[in-house]
Amino acid sequence: MKQELVLYNSLNRKKETFKPIEEGYIGMYVCGPTVYSDVHLGNVRTFVSFDIIYRYLKYLGYTVRYVRNITDVGHLLDDGTDRISKGARAEKLEPMEVVQKYTLGFHDMMRIFNSEPPSIEPRASGHILEQIEMVQQILDNGLAYEKNGSVYFDVEKFAKEQDVYGKLSGRVIEDLFSETRELKNQGEKKHPADFAIWMKAAPDHLMRWNSPWSEGFPGWHLECSVMSTKYLGTTFDIHGGGNDLKFPHHENEVAQNFGACKCQPANFWLHTNMLLMNGRKMSKSDGNTISPEELFTGESPHVSQGYSPMVVRFFMLQTHYRSTMDLSDEALKASEKGYKRLMEARKTLQGFQAVQSASAGTVDEEISKLLDQALEHMSDDFNTPMALARMFEVVPKINGIRDGHIKAEELSAETLDRTKKVFDDFIFDIFGLQEEMASGKDGTTDGLMQLVIELRNHARSQKDWGTADKIRDTLKELEIQLKDAKGGDTTWVKA
Amino acid sequence: MKQELVLYNSLNRKKETFKPIEEGYIGMYVCGPTVYSDVHLGNVRTFVSFDIIYRYLKYLGYTVRYVRNITDVGHLLDDGTDRISKGARAEKLEPMEVVQKYTLGFHDMMRIFNSEPPSIEPRASGHILEQIEMVQQILDNGLAYEKNGSVYFDVEKFAKEQDVYGKLSGRVIEDLFSETRELKNQGEKKHPADFAIWMKAAPDHLMRWNSPWSEGFPGWHLECSVMSTKYLGTTFDIHGGGNDLKFPHHENEVAQNFGACKCQPANFWLHTNMLLMNGRKMSKSDGNTISPEELFTGESPHVSQGYSPMVVRFFMLQTHYRSTMDLSDEALKASEKGYKRLMEARKTLQGFQAVQSASAGTVDEEISKLLDQALEHMSDDFNTPMALARMFEVVPKINGIRDGHIKAEELSAETLDRTKKVFDDFIFDIFGLQEEMASGKDGTTDGLMQLVIELRNHARSQKDWGTADKIRDTLKELEIQLKDAKGGDTTWVKA
Repeated sequence: MKQELVLYNSLNRKKETFKPIEEGYIGMYVCGPTVYSDVHLGNVRTFVSFDIIYRYLKYLGYTVRYVRNITDVGHLLDDGTDRISKGARAEKLEPMEVVQKYTLGFHDMMRIFNSEPPSIEPRASGHILEQIEMVQQILDNGLAYEKNGSVYFDVEKFAKEQDVYGKLSGRVIEDLFSETRELKNQGEKKHPADFAIWMKAAPDHLMRWNSPWSEGFPGWHLECSVMSTKYLGTTFDIHGGGNDLKFPHHENEVAQNFGACKCQPANFWLHTNMLLMNGRKMSKSDGNTISPEELFTGESPHVSQGYSPMVVRFFMLQTHYRSTMDLSDEALKASEKGYKRLMEARKTLQGFQAVQSASAGTVDEEISKLLDQALEHMSDDFNTPMALARMFEVVPKINGIRDGHIKAEELSAETLDRTKKVFDDFIFDIFGLQEEMASGKDGTTDGLMQLVIELRNHARSQKDWGTADKIRDTLKELEIQLKDAKGGDTTWVKA
Repeated sequence: MKQELVLYNSLNRKKETFKPIEEGYIGMYVCGPTVYSDVHLGNVRTFVSFDIIYRYLKYLGYTVRYVRNITDVGHLLDDGTDRISKGARAEKLEPMEVVQKYTLGFHDMMRIFNSEPPSIEPRASGHILEQIEMVQQILDNGLAYEKNGSVYFDVEKFAKEQDVYGKLSGRVIEDLFSETRELKNQGEKKHPADFAIWMKAAPDHLMRWNSPWSEGFPGWHLECSVMSTKYLGTTFDIHGGGNDLKFPHHENEVAQNFGACKCQPANFWLHTNMLLMNGRKMSKSDGNTISPEELFTGESPHVSQGYSPMVVRFFMLQTHYRSTMDLSDEALKASEKGYKRLMEARKTLQGFQAVQSASAGTVDEEISKLLDQALEHMSDDFNTPMALARMFEVVPKINGIRDGHIKAEELSAETLDRTKKVFDDFIFDIFGLQEEMASGKDGTTDGLMQLVIELRNHARSQKDWGTADKIRDTLKELEIQLKDAKGGDTTWVKA
């Protein structure tokens, strides 16, 4: 029996016990990036959040089919131009060259943040035929109409027929109808709240395909309705995305799926919250913004130094995915310390040997309880900050044993083994953190450091202070810190 | 004025001077991998060859749009099943999950071999609509016929109308017609040489789309006809691929493009030759095969040790792309030496300072000539082994200057600068080689090595042989070799 998992379902605005449609399997769709520019940090937050969700679902034993799309066509701006082809004209490139450039950039960034690739990564441009078919289904069901080669979803009619529209985003249908802004080139709509599911292309529009209605392109919302259900079935388990997509994107997705199949696409809707900087919305226009690269290099007025990808990932773990996350230099500095403290504690822990004479004491019990709680927090709507807090309550106990303040005998072999395992599970498998020293991969740096530590100890024992100082100074330059443990072992960390 | 470039054009079976359709721009299409299994070493050879071609075309100053597809649907086996869905059933996965897995694997392998990504990487499954349109065009032009929901290209009729079929693969049409094997499920063809451009899907076929003729999938050859011309125009500059694709794949591609547009798709056709092992064709059935991973780790009866990706890439440079390449342990060992010798010479060269009093001597002239020749070889159908040979004639001169056998004064500042530049251009930009010590990136390993070298020299000067031996032994374990130069400088390389 799997641990009970409780999720906050945006659709019903409450926490609900999760039950998959098919025992043991989970289908999850997450709205991916629009590849017309570099991925920004807010997107990274969303994708890292769902990466942790994906990892935890797998950790619970589910077989997860995780579908995350690439939007490479049909994303409308207010001025009625396609975002992709706008980029293409600016750079004098074929739209698909722009798509390739930023898709590769996005993949690189996900790799840097140690996010796992999804099981399937479908592209909007790769599913035009399926999108045309869904437009036809919606037309056949009487919930769309054609006007001058474009096809619009009939929101007013849908709202009259079924009490669905507005439910996901929590909008009152009357307010929605009065608020709706006119989009350029859409004066042919019957009602301002209607939205395009197929657009006739202007003569200078680059991305275009033949359809029964015109040479054109699909409406932006349509791709997710089509690709989620193509790979996961008409109703699947989890649909995720950023909060900003709730309306109109997700609301319209639901409408389209109802329009085509008369059913909800997903049983659970999960939404990540915004990333702020210094308490304010990130925005290019007022300079309150930072790119991932600037964050890594520290080349930004908003940070006093560079922060590594794993420090940023650790920072993200410290806020629940449904809360606004506030980026600041101070918070990142604290995360850097926290990340290192956690990784060092892990290393220390892995070095412990079980004491034969151990008899479970208070510490044993306390640690067991904290580990249980950490897992319970994760199963309570993926509460990473709470889970992390519990692990940080274990850390002083690990360090206490290392430093001799706590007797190693208080930890039973069983609890020691479990603690080792749960720490590794959390750090690597669930949180997706990794050791920052990429160079340690081939063992060369580690091997050289062992040699240098031995040479230093030898020099000290020989009272060869010149050599010992030389080593100390060089390591300082290389930002490598040595730590001498009580037992005589020396470990090292790189800043 | 750009350097004249001569290419061997498979279409006319001779070398021809290359002229792009549009001055300064080159459109190049290369048949990419079928992502139903791990990429094998023969494919790697093809893609590394075209990577070097792509790099050299850019080096010459061309803006190159390099399109390399991903075949993720419709690749027929003799038994009539789709390769992708066959993989899917075996692994109990959705076809697109298989596609994702092996596409990621392919991209990883290309990254390991330092191959640049193409400008556009279109997928067959992402161009079904366009493929259906081309089938319709060919039908409209009377060069295809429909039978029970499948559509076949009418090779006999095409051969009668135009003297094109068989030209690329150099086959006599009558022989072709008598040779043609029957493929299962294609008994409905008028002539055995005809080939499917649309296939009606059997009930258990997983990948299927609606079309005017049936729910089915496009014939394998069709995708390349469609995607090459979509992104490069009806006739473009260069079409590449492995020799094994000449027939039927490329021959049928030409037929389809003629069938749709009445023109040759590409002005130049380039074909890479086979990769053999120990003089024989690689083949799983008789065990004469090795995977890239086995090559890297050395875990194969065919090699005595592991070879790094850059050594393998260097090995590939030593054979012209149109010649069969013969992989053997001996040849790889020689390549490892050659690669290191070249990289060390480059390092030595970059350390040279121009001598003020230098007056160009014989050496100066010789080096200049060798560099010219190396570039001429590249412009002669990308002759990498010849270009490499010229560079290796420069190496002893570099080492001679380092060791004092050749006077540094013989090299003018101008030639020294040019040699440094051409070496870097060739090694990094054209050949796409890189330093193997990825860990050197952050300078830590390099910094530690400098420290270790100093400690060793100090120990030696103090006659502290114990420490000196300790250092020597540890470095040996880490497969790091020290080299003492005449001037007293010590450099290091990692095996």
